[in-house]
Amino acid sequence: MGYLGPPGTFSEEAAMIYCADLPFVLKEYPTIDKVIEAVERKEVTLGIVPVENSLEGSVNLTLDILSGITGVTKIQIWGEMIHKIRHYLMAHPGQKLSNIKEIYSHQQAFAQCRLFLEKTLPGAARINMSSTVEAAKLVSNNINKAIIGSVRASQLYRLDVLQGGIEDDQESNYTRFLLLGLDDAPLTGNDKTSLVIGLPHKAGSLHAALGVFAQFGINLTKIESRPIRGNFGQYIFFLDIEGHRKETDVITALKELTKTTLFIKILGSYPRSN
Amino acid sequence: MGYLGPPGTFSEEAAMIYCADLPFVLKEYPTIDKVIEAVERKEVTLGIVPVENSLEGSVNLTLDILSGITGVTKIQIWGEMIHKIRHYLMAHPGQKLSNIKEIYSHQQAFAQCRLFLEKTLPGAARINMSSTVEAAKLVSNNINKAIIGSVRASQLYRLDVLQGGIEDDQESNYTRFLLLGLDDAPLTGNDKTSLVIGLPHKAGSLHAALGVFAQFGINLTKIESRPIRGNFGQYIFFLDIEGHRKETDVITALKELTKTTLFIKILGSYPRSN
Repeated sequence: MGYLGPPGTFSEEAAMIYCADLPFVLKEYPTIDKVIEAVERKEVTLGIVPVENSLEGSVNLTLDILSGITGVTKIQIWGEMIHKIRHYLMAHPGQKLSNIKEIYSHQQAFAQCRLFLEKTLPGAARINMSSTVEAAKLVSNNINKAIIGSVRASQLYRLDVLQGGIEDDQESNYTRFLLLGLDDAPLTGNDKTSLVIGLPHKAGSLHAALGVFAQFGINLTKIESRPIRGNFGQYIFFLDIEGHRKETDVITALKELTKTTLFIKILGSYPRSN
Repeated sequence: MGYLGPPGTFSEEAAMIYCADLPFVLKEYPTIDKVIEAVERKEVTLGIVPVENSLEGSVNLTLDILSGITGVTKIQIWGEMIHKIRHYLMAHPGQKLSNIKEIYSHQQAFAQCRLFLEKTLPGAARINMSSTVEAAKLVSNNINKAIIGSVRASQLYRLDVLQGGIEDDQESNYTRFLLLGLDDAPLTGNDKTSLVIGLPHKAGSLHAALGVFAQFGINLTKIESRPIRGNFGQYIFFLDIEGHRKETDVITALKELTKTTLFIKILGSYPRSN
């Protein structure tokens, strides 16, 4: 399975959890598009990439590549994984919380731990790094410095955990990952289908398209418009609907949908993770 | 006007262009929430923050704060600005393109200039920095190194431009900024209104809500669902519609909309920028 490296990122953490009981070896790639290329070339069986609320990589990029905006692709969404993000404050072994003068991390990690830091380490300087892993590399040989990152980084860079679970919102700090492959996943009875549709930019066009799903009692679990700049007459929408493309209701609804859309591209059918 | 600093970011560039003919002094803040707090405290008249496709700061954060997800706010959207992002390759004065061995920038800037770099500087190492400004600071005193960033950084850090406009997609590389204030902007006749609505999570609920806009011939220019994790029965949607909240059609439609939604919050009415 290909993942967005380097080791120690939340992407690797999610990949390790997903593969815990599977006969997969993990292989890291430096960017999201390299993960996707590796799946296309069959260098890996599956790829795992962040698609929502991510600390690592551009989230729009994943959907743009899958939708074909950046070029033709055969990649299908094969699954999804909702991974709970837990932040750890870590430092060189033997350091005490009271000695920490500087904290290194990604700016979104700082944002997610803002209240904790204001309360616990109000005097420590915060230095933005390009990733939590870069921060871990830097701090592993320095005293009086700490990082915020995944617990995995403490193993890889021999850091002590000063405090775990320091994110302010411990209930809703999730990243959604997509598993990518060359085929749909098999029908399980609890599936969803991701698709992208093009609509004329006029009042009521989206309402008419969604009417098809309402008519068949198909629930939407996500909708997102994307303006195509330079092509002002047309909008595209990313939709997730409940059901597998091999189920009769979905087949009929998607056929009906072709009457009200400029184009439809199915991005994949796969089991729902929640 | 408050903006997301430091100087040299695309946020500052957008703020400077917006204020070119206005009697505003620019004031930098380190994070998006500090910009918003400064508007609330009336320390600045307006704030400008990125809201789509941004190299700087978390884009979700802006909408979460405005919608009240993170706490009550009086802030209204006062305007929008679509700013074209142009990337420049810059280096210490006197450097030649052929001498560049390392390039420093934000990972999204690298992604946006990928084809240019593969063609022009295939052998140069790419080092991810937390921002293009951090990269500019580092490179201003080093030879054989270059950065990718805004042209403004070349003035601030005394760098020579080796090549301008190096982004691969020169037509559609835009960032959308929101102007924030304590009131709606006046009606101009070419306005839009941003709102957030809550809907029960069941088939047809979004279709019913959008039916209200279709009925009044009101065009949607944006829609985005946001799952409220930990509250699985409810979804919220960010919508942009054409028209000002003081126009009769919009007033009537929003009143009608209350019948099919769990809640509505108007985020602001303001002139359309395109």
